[in-house]
Amino acid sequence: MPSTGSDPSSGPAAFAFASASALAVGSWLERALAAITPADPGALAAARDRQNRLTKPPGSLGLLEEVSVQLAGVAGSCPPPMPTPAAVAVFAADHGVHAQGVSVWPQEVTAQMVANFLASGAAVNALAAQAGARVVVVDVGVATDLPVPDPTPDGLLRRRVRAGTADMTRVPAMTREEAVRAVEVGIGVAWELVDDGCRCLLTGDMGIANTTASAALIAAFTGVDPDEVTGHGAGIDAAARRRKVGVVRAALDLHQPDPRDPLGVVAAVGGLEHAALAGFVLGAAARRVPVILDGVIASSAALVAAALSPDAVAACVAGHRSVEPGHTVALHHLGLRPLVDLGLRLGEGTGALLALPLVQAGVRALREMATFDSAGVTNKHA
Amino acid sequence: MPSTGSDPSSGPAAFAFASASALAVGSWLERALAAITPADPGALAAARDRQNRLTKPPGSLGLLEEVSVQLAGVAGSCPPPMPTPAAVAVFAADHGVHAQGVSVWPQEVTAQMVANFLASGAAVNALAAQAGARVVVVDVGVATDLPVPDPTPDGLLRRRVRAGTADMTRVPAMTREEAVRAVEVGIGVAWELVDDGCRCLLTGDMGIANTTASAALIAAFTGVDPDEVTGHGAGIDAAARRRKVGVVRAALDLHQPDPRDPLGVVAAVGGLEHAALAGFVLGAAARRVPVILDGVIASSAALVAAALSPDAVAACVAGHRSVEPGHTVALHHLGLRPLVDLGLRLGEGTGALLALPLVQAGVRALREMATFDSAGVTNKHA
Repeated sequence: MPSTGSDPSSGPAAFAFASASALAVGSWLERALAAITPADPGALAAARDRQNRLTKPPGSLGLLEEVSVQLAGVAGSCPPPMPTPAAVAVFAADHGVHAQGVSVWPQEVTAQMVANFLASGAAVNALAAQAGARVVVVDVGVATDLPVPDPTPDGLLRRRVRAGTADMTRVPAMTREEAVRAVEVGIGVAWELVDDGCRCLLTGDMGIANTTASAALIAAFTGVDPDEVTGHGAGIDAAARRRKVGVVRAALDLHQPDPRDPLGVVAAVGGLEHAALAGFVLGAAARRVPVILDGVIASSAALVAAALSPDAVAACVAGHRSVEPGHTVALHHLGLRPLVDLGLRLGEGTGALLALPLVQAGVRALREMATFDSAGVTNKHA
Repeated sequence: MPSTGSDPSSGPAAFAFASASALAVGSWLERALAAITPADPGALAAARDRQNRLTKPPGSLGLLEEVSVQLAGVAGSCPPPMPTPAAVAVFAADHGVHAQGVSVWPQEVTAQMVANFLASGAAVNALAAQAGARVVVVDVGVATDLPVPDPTPDGLLRRRVRAGTADMTRVPAMTREEAVRAVEVGIGVAWELVDDGCRCLLTGDMGIANTTASAALIAAFTGVDPDEVTGHGAGIDAAARRRKVGVVRAALDLHQPDPRDPLGVVAAVGGLEHAALAGFVLGAAARRVPVILDGVIASSAALVAAALSPDAVAACVAGHRSVEPGHTVALHHLGLRPLVDLGLRLGEGTGALLALPLVQAGVRALREMATFDSAGVTNKHA
């Protein structure tokens, strides 16, 4: 999927990413950014008008109506195409900051969970099967060997940029070039999935300690204090959370990341999966395909994407609200309202997968419902 | 499906309801109430234990875990069966109180929307198609002829108990016997659907002015003032809402309904679809099949069911929270937490249908996920 032409919608066949290493680092990012445009105002207006003529009280489908209008704007057509087939890409990576004791889980769990995903044993597999979505697992920066059989199983993309980040409390998590390469892994996966027929992309993630990097990104981009955006992650207690706040604060103090330089921010205090997810969002937006964000990891990555291209947010649907406090802060900054709010704090893409049928229901109502005229239903009192 | 034996789980073939008129009114209700038992404590405990051994931080699937445990208790087995196939039953009826000007919609819209349901043009049809659920429309009390072709279309059950209720501000909405017959319509539909293979039932409703009857039921069962449980329904303005509060208050003042006599309450101030929905809930609970409640109509009907049989609530899942203020009051009284909260105020079963894939996802995770032991994933620090 490398350099053929300037139109990202006409990429060559899927999963040819490996050959892209022949390209200059940054050229895919440039192409993605150049392709992103605002939502289509004509399609937005047509969708709003159509919603008001369907056989229901105007507005009575609530946020589902707004989602259907948004997707018309993304696609540039009313009604928009059904957001199916769908695929969730689970970007897996490790974090040097794990050494600071920010998680109760040992680092090898990242690689073990990759194996679990490939064996269909994880929550993301059960929820994807229920939602009819494909699962793709992307090793963008796991620190250890993956305990998976040879040859590489279907569904695993080996795109490791480096074996985990460095400890951001001491040095930048990665170099700027590594950040760009990870972003381009995400762009490439998005484009490959779209080339392969997917019409809705969902973010997934796996990386022990990745809520720490998420908190740092959210604090850097929103200016909210680390104490307000740092949560209990996958199960730390109150004392450990206080230490985690200190870790985030120390990293921000050391690097003084500048939100006007989003690649610099993600290189300093982000994760490889965050960079890849930012690229995944940009890649979806560039192809005018909606992307459903999972939880706090995805939303902190979307802050990177939005800083690189504010119009990319038009393609984003917030799948759910997790219990992580930083997630709500990030969603507010992005201007997104989540569809599901069920107290989840798992990641992997589970919250995005729960939202997928809701997004599909909203579009389906806009596409298939009768109007008052066509159904012969009286529209209120004259 | 009439009188064969005393075990409601062994009813004969589906949709033989018409012959049930040979039975004494009340005998089906007695059978349903006799069959309802509490949730199975062994299955509940086994499901909680299994959730804690799955490859995820304990509790990280939030309310989905609770739903999966609940459904184990309903079914009496761990893991519970998948809640599929599913069917939504849309109970349609009219309301004499419409004469008091409580709705901007003319009464004939009820019958017109029944025709729209049968032509697959309504929101419930689009959302049911998306969720893979069957739609059954039940005329339990529409006031006017149904503009549908002869012969009766598939998917329409003609079970009209009377042609709309009377105006509850002047006389009881229906007689006690009519209330019992409407309850038994609901029980019968539930049992027919279960006999036909359905393993998840969803409530639906259609009836211009039915939020007025819902408000009266909620005020009667919870003791909350009518002003706090009466909303804007399908689109009235503030002045009309104030009149609607007065209408609810007048009906309650006239009949002084006693919540210890739930059939008397629903006869005095309810609707025929409310009575049928109460029976539908009882019928599902009697067969140990989960029932997903839609919005304020269903929840006010569930108050009737709960007053008749408190254990029936164990089979109820609150699909969503509508914008109607009485809905939140009713859910609180029932002890139910809704799965979806997207500002819907449509009815028909739409909110229940949006929750269906979430319920299925919760059960699927419990059924299909690997445990830490089976997947070889390290479970936190030793």
